[in-house]
Amino acid sequence: MRILLATRNPGKIAELRRILAGFDIVGLEEFPEIGDVAETGVTFEDNALLKAREVARQSGLPSVADDSGLCVDVLNGMPGVFSARWSGRHGDDQANLDLLLAQVSDVPDDKLTAHFTCVAALSLPSGESRVAEGVLPGHLVRAPRGSGGFGYDPIFVPDGDSRTTAEMTADEKDAISHRGRAFRALAPIVHELLAP
Amino acid sequence: MRILLATRNPGKIAELRRILAGFDIVGLEEFPEIGDVAETGVTFEDNALLKAREVARQSGLPSVADDSGLCVDVLNGMPGVFSARWSGRHGDDQANLDLLLAQVSDVPDDKLTAHFTCVAALSLPSGESRVAEGVLPGHLVRAPRGSGGFGYDPIFVPDGDSRTTAEMTADEKDAISHRGRAFRALAPIVHELLAP
Repeated sequence: MRILLATRNPGKIAELRRILAGFDIVGLEEFPEIGDVAETGVTFEDNALLKAREVARQSGLPSVADDSGLCVDVLNGMPGVFSARWSGRHGDDQANLDLLLAQVSDVPDDKLTAHFTCVAALSLPSGESRVAEGVLPGHLVRAPRGSGGFGYDPIFVPDGDSRTTAEMTADEKDAISHRGRAFRALAPIVHELLAP
Repeated sequence: MRILLATRNPGKIAELRRILAGFDIVGLEEFPEIGDVAETGVTFEDNALLKAREVARQSGLPSVADDSGLCVDVLNGMPGVFSARWSGRHGDDQANLDLLLAQVSDVPDDKLTAHFTCVAALSLPSGESRVAEGVLPGHLVRAPRGSGGFGYDPIFVPDGDSRTTAEMTADEKDAISHRGRAFRALAPIVHELLAP
């Protein structure tokens, strides 16, 4: 059974292949006619479902999509779905991170708790959809550290570790990541709906 | 009975005098030795109580303080207590407003609901404290309008009106404002604890 993962990121595709062994996972590189889906939702679930449904509709394949971001407790869970455009400029990681640090500069250290959240959605061409969530709890540090990862990784330290996620190897980060957790939580749902 | 309002803003003092007729309302201009109180709280209530308690302690008078901000629904209630430093630069109204508009630029118009919130706190020199909240519901507009008020007033339209709060006269805004509502909600508490 083929499943389309709504991404052009080979790392994401390889990760889902490991988690959903037994399925034939393909990425958007096999569907060049499918363009980007606008992420106009206001929750991770909204955006993951928007993408999974649209890609399933256009491809005719069961499709998986995800949306994720950093949720800071003193900001009531923001940047959240706005993580990639927090500074108002989409995809400017440095500006987003700088703004976040400036906003929390007066917040006491012990209140800098945060978590990465990912919601993964499965949509069938019939329209049926299901979602699963993965969370990585931790806290923010004020001085960025590490060159791995992207986005807010240099200022996020997962619970139980002293390194930022930007100081971990890709394998170490994959093992605990919110996206890995969401994909693994989605796996039994995929098996239930699409048993090969 | 004298009550100290923790502000140097004559407009705020006049407003509280109208609402608490029968009390002798004074402002911080009569207590030049009392410095600014750091707003290190993460809720409006935290900050209003921090200020009211500190000012009551230093002055020996029953003291009223308030904290307020703009709460945008798609941002989970943020900027909230961070309203005056949303861009990371404290008190830069234009930068704060520009950032907020950029962040919500992809959000559909019908999801731009928001409210101004104010929490007013009364603290007695004994340490006893009470709080009251005032809310002004409305929505955001993308193009700033009007030159009155301050902060986010040029992009906030209260429910039941078509003007931004920056397009209203000071009297019109006072009549509906979140701060006026919080002060009026606090009035019976002041009378109960401090009946002249």
